[in-house]
Amino acid sequence: MSFYEEALQANARYAEGFQYGHLPLPPARKAVVLTCMDARLIPNEFLGFNIGEVHVIRNAGALATDDAIRSLVISTNLLGTREIVIIAHTDCGMLTFRDDEVREQLQQNYGADASNLALHAFSDLHESVRKQVQRVRECPFIAKDIPVHGLIYHVETGKLEEVAHA
Amino acid sequence: MSFYEEALQANARYAEGFQYGHLPLPPARKAVVLTCMDARLIPNEFLGFNIGEVHVIRNAGALATDDAIRSLVISTNLLGTREIVIIAHTDCGMLTFRDDEVREQLQQNYGADASNLALHAFSDLHESVRKQVQRVRECPFIAKDIPVHGLIYHVETGKLEEVAHA
Repeated sequence: MSFYEEALQANARYAEGFQYGHLPLPPARKAVVLTCMDARLIPNEFLGFNIGEVHVIRNAGALATDDAIRSLVISTNLLGTREIVIIAHTDCGMLTFRDDEVREQLQQNYGADASNLALHAFSDLHESVRKQVQRVRECPFIAKDIPVHGLIYHVETGKLEEVAHA
Repeated sequence: MSFYEEALQANARYAEGFQYGHLPLPPARKAVVLTCMDARLIPNEFLGFNIGEVHVIRNAGALATDDAIRSLVISTNLLGTREIVIIAHTDCGMLTFRDDEVREQLQQNYGADASNLALHAFSDLHESVRKQVQRVRECPFIAKDIPVHGLIYHVETGKLEEVAHA
């Protein structure tokens, strides 16, 4: 069976015992997390939060891309969040390739022009976290009294390492 | 105590019993989910998957933005995922405002030029899901034999509704 079919079945079981239909839209703990799409990261478990409490933004690399910033602007200005936590992680896929190599591979595999495709691979994890924290801090539409924290989650131990604050 | 301080404490407890340090980088169930940042969505719970199994991309609105597509291209081409599931949800914040209104509000609150800030609010949830599925399907760097499913998660009941396939 495909993941999709299994997920539909799992969801039918989940909905049977569902007790959270009353939760309001704004996150109860007024916080937003930006982290990586990596399958080994289950943010509510390694940060200890429950349904309805925290916004979670995820992309390849836990990067403060324009789209992540768009989501952060909406979260903080329209939905009441007051803390931003950015979490990259060890053994990230983004450390394993270079943009130009992947562009060439995609161009060969698909026969389409990949020259404008930015993948945003990086080679220094700590430096990347500091950059993302800075990028969010510099956004003119995120209030300056909202703290921005940058951390690295260690997939080998489950532990968080503090890296940067702004 | 702030969310950040509480999360650090919760993480220390989580790491004590950590048993997943051996998991490989590629998602075990070869699937990637694109969903909204909304706090009421806990994807591993409502879809029934575990740590290490599925990539999760999240942004405001579950939109197939350029950045979400970047993450999907990396997931499918470099990390072996073979199914894409896009999940929007009822009572989405993106249905509650209009871009031009928010731009004006941000410009007034922060005194910075917001005219180029796209927030991508939408007014029709089903139409938005169909559009995102189509946008992913049209990406030249996602293999055509990878199915793209579009669904709506009902925050009132915990149930998934199938909307579009491509």
